[in-house]
Amino acid sequence: VSEPGLPEQHEVPPDLERVIFFSDAVFAIAMTLLVIDLAVPTAADMTNQELLKNLRDLGPSIFSYALSFAVVGSYWLAHWRRFHYIERTNEPLALINLALLGLVALIPFPTAVLGAHGNLPAAVVLYAVVLSAGGIVGGLSWLYAYRAGLCRPDVDTRELRLGLMRSWSGPVVMLASLPLLFVSTTLTELSWLLIFPAQVVLRRM
Amino acid sequence: VSEPGLPEQHEVPPDLERVIFFSDAVFAIAMTLLVIDLAVPTAADMTNQELLKNLRDLGPSIFSYALSFAVVGSYWLAHWRRFHYIERTNEPLALINLALLGLVALIPFPTAVLGAHGNLPAAVVLYAVVLSAGGIVGGLSWLYAYRAGLCRPDVDTRELRLGLMRSWSGPVVMLASLPLLFVSTTLTELSWLLIFPAQVVLRRM
Amino acid sequence: VSEPGLPEQHEVPPDLERVIFFSDAVFAIAMTLLVIDLAVPTAADMTNQELLKNLRDLGPSIFSYALSFAVVGSYWLAHWRRFHYIERTNEPLALINLALLGLVALIPFPTAVLGAHGNLPAAVVLYAVVLSAGGIVGGLSWLYAYRAGLCRPDVDTRELRLGLMRSWSGPVVMLASLPLLFVSTTLTELSWLLIFPAQVVLRRM
Amino acid sequence: VSEPGLPEQHEVPPDLERVIFFSDAVFAIAMTLLVIDLAVPTAADMTNQELLKNLRDLGPSIFSYALSFAVVGSYWLAHWRRFHYIERTNEPLALINLALLGLVALIPFPTAVLGAHGNLPAAVVLYAVVLSAGGIVGGLSWLYAYRAGLCRPDVDTRELRLGLMRSWSGPVVMLASLPLLFVSTTLTELSWLLIFPAQVVLRRM
Repeated sequence: VSEPGLPEQHEVPPDLERVIFFSDAVFAIAMTLLVIDLAVPTAADMTNQELLKNLRDLGPSIFSYALSFAVVGSYWLAHWRRFHYIERTNEPLALINLALLGLVALIPFPTAVLGAHGNLPAAVVLYAVVLSAGGIVGGLSWLYAYRAGLCRPDVDTRELRLGLMRSWSGPVVMLASLPLLFVSTTLTELSWLLIFPAQVVLRRM
Repeated sequence: VSEPGLPEQHEVPPDLERVIFFSDAVFAIAMTLLVIDLAVPTAADMTNQELLKNLRDLGPSIFSYALSFAVVGSYWLAHWRRFHYIERTNEPLALINLALLGLVALIPFPTAVLGAHGNLPAAVVLYAVVLSAGGIVGGLSWLYAYRAGLCRPDVDTRELRLGLMRSWSGPVVMLASLPLLFVSTTLTELSWLLIFPAQVVLRRM
Repeated sequence: VSEPGLPEQHEVPPDLERVIFFSDAVFAIAMTLLVIDLAVPTAADMTNQELLKNLRDLGPSIFSYALSFAVVGSYWLAHWRRFHYIERTNEPLALINLALLGLVALIPFPTAVLGAHGNLPAAVVLYAVVLSAGGIVGGLSWLYAYRAGLCRPDVDTRELRLGLMRSWSGPVVMLASLPLLFVSTTLTELSWLLIFPAQVVLRRM
Repeated sequence: VSEPGLPEQHEVPPDLERVIFFSDAVFAIAMTLLVIDLAVPTAADMTNQELLKNLRDLGPSIFSYALSFAVVGSYWLAHWRRFHYIERTNEPLALINLALLGLVALIPFPTAVLGAHGNLPAAVVLYAVVLSAGGIVGGLSWLYAYRAGLCRPDVDTRELRLGLMRSWSGPVVMLASLPLLFVSTTLTELSWLLIFPAQVVLRRM
């Protein structure tokens, strides 16, 4: 009942297991810290009407929370899938992975800027650049693992290409959307939602 | 000496193990971030009387900390029990699990709003809706795992139904309590404590 | 070369492993969140003298950071040692463990209050009560595991008693120190350092 | 295809595994908390120009984020490599490791001070001292593990010396740079970048 194309796994050596769990911890914390930007309206003796208005004003922050959670979640899924096929690690792969985690850990920052200033092009560009960098480095880690012979023997160039397309589809959508800034920041941000159907299409391949 | 109805476990494949530990990390961080809302009274040169008064004023925040910790804890216990019976994973299950984690990671936000404005219906509704969504999606993940054949062969429809009842008892209590808002916010919040005896009854079944 | 009294371990079943790693995550986050209370002096255009003075003023906060880190660290060590001897889990043990984690996750709050108001008895009592509660519940989890037959067969009542003394030595020191508040808050806090030699003595036994 | 000098690994006993994963969690959280210091410019109705200026003003904070991420990352890599060769643990090693983690968890604090006041010698000294302490204690844990016979039988004094040099190269660079403070704080901070080529050279050895 396992998915087609996701073959059985064997033992994971402790070194590799540690790289994976360390990555999971960084992903989990970055995803959970996103919520810190949802600042609670704290004025004492607020009326129900005022609280409702305050919650409505948090709309853009909640959009950027959900968007970042979905993007980081898709990066985690890509990481999870890549390491399904990687059966050994070495220090260069651990280093590339650290670079990826450094970008993932940074994501709460552009997310907060986008939540506060989503109508400003600078916030949109910052967000697109940081999140794209994460996707690009993620793809590089997969490319390196393949070239260095750290993948399982049954991974072929088709699998390699598919993994790269999955990793880089997010960056391609985000960077390609930037010219839309001349039209509207809202349109640019909404165009990023194309990442998710793109992922579904790639997963079917 | 293991509990009746909790049969022996076997090897967990690395893919599934990673989904589980990633979930544990998100649960752990969300539970620990709840404490951040307990803002420390920082005015310098405070007297002991003033500090005591400040700590007493934190009462509602401490109530919402304890309530959220207990609810998220019960979600974690439900997750722990579900994955006792799940022996394989696939990408759709990992995705549903991510959606659940996105809701769990959000919980510090409604908790903080409830701690600051527990007397306002909007805060109570926000809290009940977000926490119920977590419980509902948790149950859906269990339903999906069963339907997709990812559970152990000895899981039958009785086990399925019991798991759904455990997952959905919290949402049912919380959503059913909302009409009590026409009476009192305090009464509504206190009625949520019914979740815990309900869990105990279901566990006995 | 392993320590006397710390016998070999065997396989850990997945259920128990998950309880342990979830606990580790909560301990790790609670310990790391302690640092958030070390508020950075942010006034722009500060002179070196002013920064030095600000850092010196953080002295009490750094003391409470180090104290809490050491206490939580000793709780983690006690947890680590207890679960060396526990070979199965059940839902009641997972629940008692959750209660322990709820207290551990709370520790950054009394730590921050103590850092800001270490000269006020209310801050000292709050700190002693929350940290003692953690130690007491930790001991209860060990007592429960023993009584419920979840420990390895080679754990005898001597081991049980030693584990309880290790778990409860912190609470005993802290609660017994409270009468010293009539003399001085500083003396009370310094007396807590007795926990660490007490641990060493107990470890030798 | 594994690196020369990084021999095969065998089973990791549960006790040791727990020390490792607990360490990973603390490293991961400390690295991720670094981003909290990147305070979002929140003034409402900011223009794009003002946001750009605010982001440029964050330059020093972003430098200290990247520097700390890289240093903590190199400490994690050193930890990862050390525990590749350690095959057993005992309480003293767990304790030394806790002391290391207490210093790692502290790193967000000097990082924030350096980001806010990088032009002040006190901030530079604080940063160099805390980060060096982490590196020094990391080396001590390796020295202890070797002396206590907790390493694999194939670890010889050459491996020991190399591990110590890797652990202590960061502290040596940082502490040796402090006299540069009489010239310039910027120069002192830039000199720390020498840590990374030093690591590369040592890894080749």
